[in-house]
Amino acid sequence: MSKRLRIGVIGAGRIGKIHAESIATRLPQAELAAVADIYLPAAQETGEAFQVPIIVADYHVILTDPAIEAVAICSDTNTHAQIIQEAAAAGKHIFCEKPIDHSLAKIDAALTAVTQASVKLQIGFNRRFDPNFRKVRQMIVDGKIGHPHILRITSRDPAPPPIEYIKVSGGIFLDMTIHDFDMARYLIGSQVTEIFAAGGVMVDPAIGEAGDLDTVVITLKFANGVIGTIDNSRQAVYGYDQRVEVFGSEGMVAVANNTPDTHVHSNANGVHSSLPLHFFLERYLDSYVIEMQEFVDAVLHDKEPPVTGEDGRIPVVMGLAAQESWQENRPVLLNA
Amino acid sequence: MSKRLRIGVIGAGRIGKIHAESIATRLPQAELAAVADIYLPAAQETGEAFQVPIIVADYHVILTDPAIEAVAICSDTNTHAQIIQEAAAAGKHIFCEKPIDHSLAKIDAALTAVTQASVKLQIGFNRRFDPNFRKVRQMIVDGKIGHPHILRITSRDPAPPPIEYIKVSGGIFLDMTIHDFDMARYLIGSQVTEIFAAGGVMVDPAIGEAGDLDTVVITLKFANGVIGTIDNSRQAVYGYDQRVEVFGSEGMVAVANNTPDTHVHSNANGVHSSLPLHFFLERYLDSYVIEMQEFVDAVLHDKEPPVTGEDGRIPVVMGLAAQESWQENRPVLLNA
Amino acid sequence: MSKRLRIGVIGAGRIGKIHAESIATRLPQAELAAVADIYLPAAQETGEAFQVPIIVADYHVILTDPAIEAVAICSDTNTHAQIIQEAAAAGKHIFCEKPIDHSLAKIDAALTAVTQASVKLQIGFNRRFDPNFRKVRQMIVDGKIGHPHILRITSRDPAPPPIEYIKVSGGIFLDMTIHDFDMARYLIGSQVTEIFAAGGVMVDPAIGEAGDLDTVVITLKFANGVIGTIDNSRQAVYGYDQRVEVFGSEGMVAVANNTPDTHVHSNANGVHSSLPLHFFLERYLDSYVIEMQEFVDAVLHDKEPPVTGEDGRIPVVMGLAAQESWQENRPVLLNA
Amino acid sequence: MSKRLRIGVIGAGRIGKIHAESIATRLPQAELAAVADIYLPAAQETGEAFQVPIIVADYHVILTDPAIEAVAICSDTNTHAQIIQEAAAAGKHIFCEKPIDHSLAKIDAALTAVTQASVKLQIGFNRRFDPNFRKVRQMIVDGKIGHPHILRITSRDPAPPPIEYIKVSGGIFLDMTIHDFDMARYLIGSQVTEIFAAGGVMVDPAIGEAGDLDTVVITLKFANGVIGTIDNSRQAVYGYDQRVEVFGSEGMVAVANNTPDTHVHSNANGVHSSLPLHFFLERYLDSYVIEMQEFVDAVLHDKEPPVTGEDGRIPVVMGLAAQESWQENRPVLLNA
Repeated sequence: MSKRLRIGVIGAGRIGKIHAESIATRLPQAELAAVADIYLPAAQETGEAFQVPIIVADYHVILTDPAIEAVAICSDTNTHAQIIQEAAAAGKHIFCEKPIDHSLAKIDAALTAVTQASVKLQIGFNRRFDPNFRKVRQMIVDGKIGHPHILRITSRDPAPPPIEYIKVSGGIFLDMTIHDFDMARYLIGSQVTEIFAAGGVMVDPAIGEAGDLDTVVITLKFANGVIGTIDNSRQAVYGYDQRVEVFGSEGMVAVANNTPDTHVHSNANGVHSSLPLHFFLERYLDSYVIEMQEFVDAVLHDKEPPVTGEDGRIPVVMGLAAQESWQENRPVLLNA
Repeated sequence: MSKRLRIGVIGAGRIGKIHAESIATRLPQAELAAVADIYLPAAQETGEAFQVPIIVADYHVILTDPAIEAVAICSDTNTHAQIIQEAAAAGKHIFCEKPIDHSLAKIDAALTAVTQASVKLQIGFNRRFDPNFRKVRQMIVDGKIGHPHILRITSRDPAPPPIEYIKVSGGIFLDMTIHDFDMARYLIGSQVTEIFAAGGVMVDPAIGEAGDLDTVVITLKFANGVIGTIDNSRQAVYGYDQRVEVFGSEGMVAVANNTPDTHVHSNANGVHSSLPLHFFLERYLDSYVIEMQEFVDAVLHDKEPPVTGEDGRIPVVMGLAAQESWQENRPVLLNA
Repeated sequence: MSKRLRIGVIGAGRIGKIHAESIATRLPQAELAAVADIYLPAAQETGEAFQVPIIVADYHVILTDPAIEAVAICSDTNTHAQIIQEAAAAGKHIFCEKPIDHSLAKIDAALTAVTQASVKLQIGFNRRFDPNFRKVRQMIVDGKIGHPHILRITSRDPAPPPIEYIKVSGGIFLDMTIHDFDMARYLIGSQVTEIFAAGGVMVDPAIGEAGDLDTVVITLKFANGVIGTIDNSRQAVYGYDQRVEVFGSEGMVAVANNTPDTHVHSNANGVHSSLPLHFFLERYLDSYVIEMQEFVDAVLHDKEPPVTGEDGRIPVVMGLAAQESWQENRPVLLNA
Repeated sequence: MSKRLRIGVIGAGRIGKIHAESIATRLPQAELAAVADIYLPAAQETGEAFQVPIIVADYHVILTDPAIEAVAICSDTNTHAQIIQEAAAAGKHIFCEKPIDHSLAKIDAALTAVTQASVKLQIGFNRRFDPNFRKVRQMIVDGKIGHPHILRITSRDPAPPPIEYIKVSGGIFLDMTIHDFDMARYLIGSQVTEIFAAGGVMVDPAIGEAGDLDTVVITLKFANGVIGTIDNSRQAVYGYDQRVEVFGSEGMVAVANNTPDTHVHSNANGVHSSLPLHFFLERYLDSYVIEMQEFVDAVLHDKEPPVTGEDGRIPVVMGLAAQESWQENRPVLLNA
């Protein structure tokens, strides 16, 4: 292993660019060795910005380069499982954006390949690395709220994605709630055993016509007895609303939204302050750097990645259960 | 009708004393004409404090006194329905503490008697008169958040009541959540059509042994499409936690807990502020005065009381449905 | 001494009515025995509201009534010193609104009369009884912030009084800052030794034409080394702004404004909350009740009143020093 | 001018490293061309971290290199004026850390050299680029608070520097308050005409023995009538306290401290949240990047730098006036 981990980024879209920049400028122990995108100009834009030696359309060039030790898979979701399998076969360590896939069969094939190749795999549930949620988790671990009893997650987007995206998104549970399913598991540190999902189309009828929901409220039961709720909306006009609260036998810990500044303006009409940071790129910027830092650490020092393949699989199981619950209007048990 | 409404208070326990004091000292248009309690010393303590002319053990003395125009029923829950019927028959206007009863049959008999006697009946859902919740309701009515989509109610007590009380309480849904069921209806202004209740025994095993739950999370579906959640705990160690949040198409409004002061203390360990006001007597003190003021207004000016008999009945229906939902682990439809 | 202290209220203006209501309805150990106002209809309005037996224009009727044990002087400032002297001579215990007078000579004469008559005198610096400021004082006393170093008081009115009032007010330092001078002494528990005052006319030129200032910033040096600042404005368009902050060797304590509710409204324009309670009647309502309660306690149980005549005198000394500092643009020493 | 501005960093201490990193990794339009430090290992550590081609002990190597277009002077304060003169003579654009010097004569010589050479000079008052303070300034410029009346700046360090540093610091007014003097000018957009300073030794007697103060409260009068206060302490045990408040005819705007997270923890003892970000490196990290970005922009696009040499000079004038005010205990006029 080199002292600086040589990483190839596969997929130079919005998230791919973020990871490329982190690797190139923020992580002294990593090196941006290559960028690939099937749309070559995208690869070129990012690659040239950081003087990357290898800029290609075909990611197989990266997989066959023996000097490259790891890949960051940031391509379309439906390519993840396939690339994971190929990268594992090529002996590359793998960082893969979430979700692994919408199909459990494809996920399982990918995870099996990873296990057989004995490479590291980390899934990009970046919110775990957000300072707010880390603090909540740490306080629970430290016993600051005693035994957790009730979990509440609020997760609302500032605006819905285009209908064309909605149609291929896998549905709100797999596209949006999946982050909150992971957050629920991360914070409580226990498996979810049962899910009940309520939902509706309140934001845009076109979302309903596309067969999806835009507003959902989900009840979770955990193996350790905790009861949780998640509420999602595709459109909070006041911006990206990302809060959690955990209540326990010895207290409660909650985190509020982050804002661009702390100003408070008082005038004759009221007391006014800033809206939350607009969307995930602004809100979770630091978390993208930290998760990649931890991936690099895990590879360089042969540690288990902080978000495993199994951690990537279970939220998909939960999303499928939520979908079934909503369709059948009944609580659905999860198989362990 | 006299210029000042002459009211007799029946039941001089904790709540009876509060109403007696409001009537005697805060409401210029009302007069505390009598106090009754089957335990005469209780009636005497309160009656003498306010120089009340009639202090009795038997409330029938009040019902048969033609100079008394209204009664405030603050006795044990299991006596409410009976006294309502007798008071209605005696032509008295009635303020009655919640719940009317745990039995729908007895409630219906009481409401029928009120209708037949054409007297006013107001139920003591005092939280509707709390400035925080009134503000939330007003903002919804004023369209400040557009169409409501999601409701969240948090309602947690500082400590559980004695087990002996738990045993006769009717269960957490009828004893504690009933306030939140009313709050949900009040805030959203639409009927609840379906309830799903999850719950557990997390605070005290003795509560479970008594056949009750101490922690519940409830999903509500409203006729107008809103989805709501209520979470209750019998024990929040940080005090009485009474918050609501309503999210809609044009924004969100939320109210926080009230505190005895606004101090913020910063030291080497952190930034610290006051716990919420301890329990309902402190938290809702003003609301008890306002609800009684509105009852007096309704009677003196022949207006419909702000919390009707039907408003008293429906939360009991909801409580029974929640109980059924929890027992059968399925969503339960409410009949209109 | 009777079990219930019989008090006569002299002056039935805004403050007089508040004290009359407290005595009549909130203080079980006190009795509203008489109300006097040179404008008889004012006395009648308040007196009749509380069924007071003695309602008069001439306060001497109260002073000569042997059954009345104490008086609350709520008349015009320029009558305070005179009435104190007469009340003391009549053996009445005295609660007197602030300021005692604008003339130190008249104040001293009044205080001498009180001492000679051995009656109790309490001055109406009601803000000391506000829960926020009491909490700050208590935390300092309890050592929660270590040794105090810096004091900051912000005290801004929602709107200036009429110019006619300004002209007879004694100037902003004696009319408005006087409360903050008392608050400074109360919180720090040490004498002020030096004052530097800066000021201007920023709100309304007519205030300047009347010879007064409408905006002042004052530096205080205390005997114990603490340095303080007070800022005053006659007009904060967002309402009554009443905050203090004390910084010390082990931490800081600050109190914020009180609001009518805790609502937070988020919409596309920002996050909005309630303005402070409008003005002193709303903001300090409880403190008026508590100060009168403590006066009653002091008389009934022969304790020193919590705000003494000397406490009433010193803020006038400070106001005169501030005036001199501003006129001469130099720090002014206070004689002990 | 090249498309990417080639900058040499002179002085590789704490601040020099920050600017070196910004230039190397955050500013696509700049290039870290050289690092100099009289202690060569310091230059090597920073230079090697960013693969800088020129790493030297003697900054004259940078000044004589024709390929280097600008310098960032981050060396000891007492070298600033000299290096500015030399850099100007060499035709380099100059970013210089504050203060320029403690001597007005040396400052003036440096500024004259800059003017004669027609190079750009930007002074490192980084707090102007902090998102909180920028927001306050923008709101004032936008008229959101009307005409400003009162300014309040709180600026307290978490702990005093070593006594050896205090001795050569130039005193608290030139070392610490100088930032707040600049902030006052920046926020209000008007010159300060008069200063009154109060102060004491409350944190550590050794600071007094070194001839300095550790706690100061300063009154500022501005040409446009605004009155301001600044309070400084060398030790706030709860951390770096950096707040401002501006009050005006149409409202008020205030900014609070920044925290590492937004968590709120409620337990039986109270409601607790995070301390402010520890010190200037954490608190103002972004502002260092932004100020350098704006310097690069100013040079590349031939604009006036946002903080001029005159902006660097005036706070020193203010610091000297504050010192005089404190020594003579009188307000001191500033010559324009």
